[in-house]
Amino acid sequence: MVTIDDIIEAHARLRGKHVPTPLLEYEQVNERVGGRVLFKAENLQRTGSFKFRGAYNKIASLADEQRARGVVTYSSGNHAQGVAAAARAFGVPATVVMPDDAPALKRDNTVRLGAEVVLYDRLNGDRRAIAEEIAAKTGAVIVPPYDDPMVIAGQGTIGLEIAGQLAESGTQADILLCPAGGGGLIAGVSTAIRARVPQMKLYCAEPEGFDDTRVSLERGERTGNQPGRSTICDAIVTQIPGEITFPINKANLSGGFAVSDAEVAAAVRLLFEVAKLVVEPGGAVGLAALLAGRLDCRGRTAVVVLSGGNMDLAFFRDVIAAPGAGG
Amino acid sequence: MVTIDDIIEAHARLRGKHVPTPLLEYEQVNERVGGRVLFKAENLQRTGSFKFRGAYNKIASLADEQRARGVVTYSSGNHAQGVAAAARAFGVPATVVMPDDAPALKRDNTVRLGAEVVLYDRLNGDRRAIAEEIAAKTGAVIVPPYDDPMVIAGQGTIGLEIAGQLAESGTQADILLCPAGGGGLIAGVSTAIRARVPQMKLYCAEPEGFDDTRVSLERGERTGNQPGRSTICDAIVTQIPGEITFPINKANLSGGFAVSDAEVAAAVRLLFEVAKLVVEPGGAVGLAALLAGRLDCRGRTAVVVLSGGNMDLAFFRDVIAAPGAGG
Repeated sequence: MVTIDDIIEAHARLRGKHVPTPLLEYEQVNERVGGRVLFKAENLQRTGSFKFRGAYNKIASLADEQRARGVVTYSSGNHAQGVAAAARAFGVPATVVMPDDAPALKRDNTVRLGAEVVLYDRLNGDRRAIAEEIAAKTGAVIVPPYDDPMVIAGQGTIGLEIAGQLAESGTQADILLCPAGGGGLIAGVSTAIRARVPQMKLYCAEPEGFDDTRVSLERGERTGNQPGRSTICDAIVTQIPGEITFPINKANLSGGFAVSDAEVAAAVRLLFEVAKLVVEPGGAVGLAALLAGRLDCRGRTAVVVLSGGNMDLAFFRDVIAAPGAGG
Repeated sequence: MVTIDDIIEAHARLRGKHVPTPLLEYEQVNERVGGRVLFKAENLQRTGSFKFRGAYNKIASLADEQRARGVVTYSSGNHAQGVAAAARAFGVPATVVMPDDAPALKRDNTVRLGAEVVLYDRLNGDRRAIAEEIAAKTGAVIVPPYDDPMVIAGQGTIGLEIAGQLAESGTQADILLCPAGGGGLIAGVSTAIRARVPQMKLYCAEPEGFDDTRVSLERGERTGNQPGRSTICDAIVTQIPGEITFPINKANLSGGFAVSDAEVAAAVRLLFEVAKLVVEPGGAVGLAALLAGRLDCRGRTAVVVLSGGNMDLAFFRDVIAAPGAGG
């Protein structure tokens, strides 16, 4: 469905448009886990998360007359900003359907990037249906948050860069940990890594109660989350793995790990104090899994994708004050 | 005293040992100042500040038998960590004379990096005299925080990288803003930029009340600060410009700017929310000067050196809660 060639093509489209984010290493983190940890810092990406890559690739792949009619999407935040920035780069209008309780910073930034925001009630509305209605009315193209080959290929450029950065520094990596919401990021990244660094073992990380990809991998079929849970990881809350992403992840991943809010908060705190990086809870689940000992990293080298950093100061204060965060 | 060749040599020594930090750009910051702002993110450097570069270059330049006797320095934090990490990289002992009120994070990290910490009373002790006594007793070599050609050349590698990054991306930059404490960082950086991008205008940024380099540049001679002031910018508090650094800065700089604690706190906050970077107050003075309108950046491209990110969460909470910080 998505090949390494699609990802190479996406990377060529992104050239000069995105930030080829650094792969960062910290002695103090290495000491904590007894191995090497390399952070792919996608919080430093345009719009503060990896989402710009997939959105840009999707919009770039449209025919001129399609693109001119604009794009529409639905997102609680990071994908919204990615689509808004990518649409603006092409000078086409963007409409974003957002829940009315989306984090203020993500909503404000989406508006600042020139998108029209349409709010809906998360409990009673159907964001995808609203987006489809707008698309039918205006002719705008839907840019799905994850279940789209061009979006997945765009996110996969992160894996391509990781492979290049490992090769350049002569580093043999053993493990990759990557957050999963709908699974588009890790589907793209794992496709690139499988092609370029096939000996690496790949794992997803998710919040407890929203570990639908982990559970689905174990059961071998798409399985939704039980209702009634909450998490601080707003960026990666989804109900069930994607129809397109899951078969890819099933083929590529060795498994997944679920982490508690307190474990995520401890990772956010460490990233602040040691790595000097602002990483939102949903972006820090991979490190949280390592720090919590879900995976033995002693004597091994792990690549950890930090997928985003969009949180405001008030939210950050709440996160580091959470029980167990040690803040 | 320090030439571009010294800096090129320092860069060759650092290769594979330091982080060639990224030059990062954010649309939202550009919009704020009406021009382009490129951040040289030295908060992502080993030990969380640029200081590793100078310390490593100094220790690397010693003869084997000198180096084997170990090194000693005096620092309230960032230079301490830089020296400790560089000494450890060479497997030689390091002693650091630190004020007993140095930030806990900086002190803890220095110990964690294997250095012996000797505390002194800031009000009544003379840290340099204590370091000289230790050097006389043990034969250890002093690694001065700024007034040393090898230290300055090491910090200058930041300027060399900036010049390379500008050239690689085809960017014409007009202005550079860089924090100044003793002036070693900006002496090295300005020497490299003068040699490689001579059309750029170079400025230092300092906290109000500790703007000794700015005042000294205006008066044309080394002039100390008035006593009795305080600042949140602990990393760049010095009494008077260095004997070696000042003549270099006098030759290279177009002037300097002083910023208030509230202006610095606003910059720290913006770097958190927009740039996803943890930058300590002393590392954010350059951006603070831009945001406060000390320098008109409209239609121009400014490089801003973010020199460090070593602050713990408790201190960060105090900084963003400060009056005028908007936190």
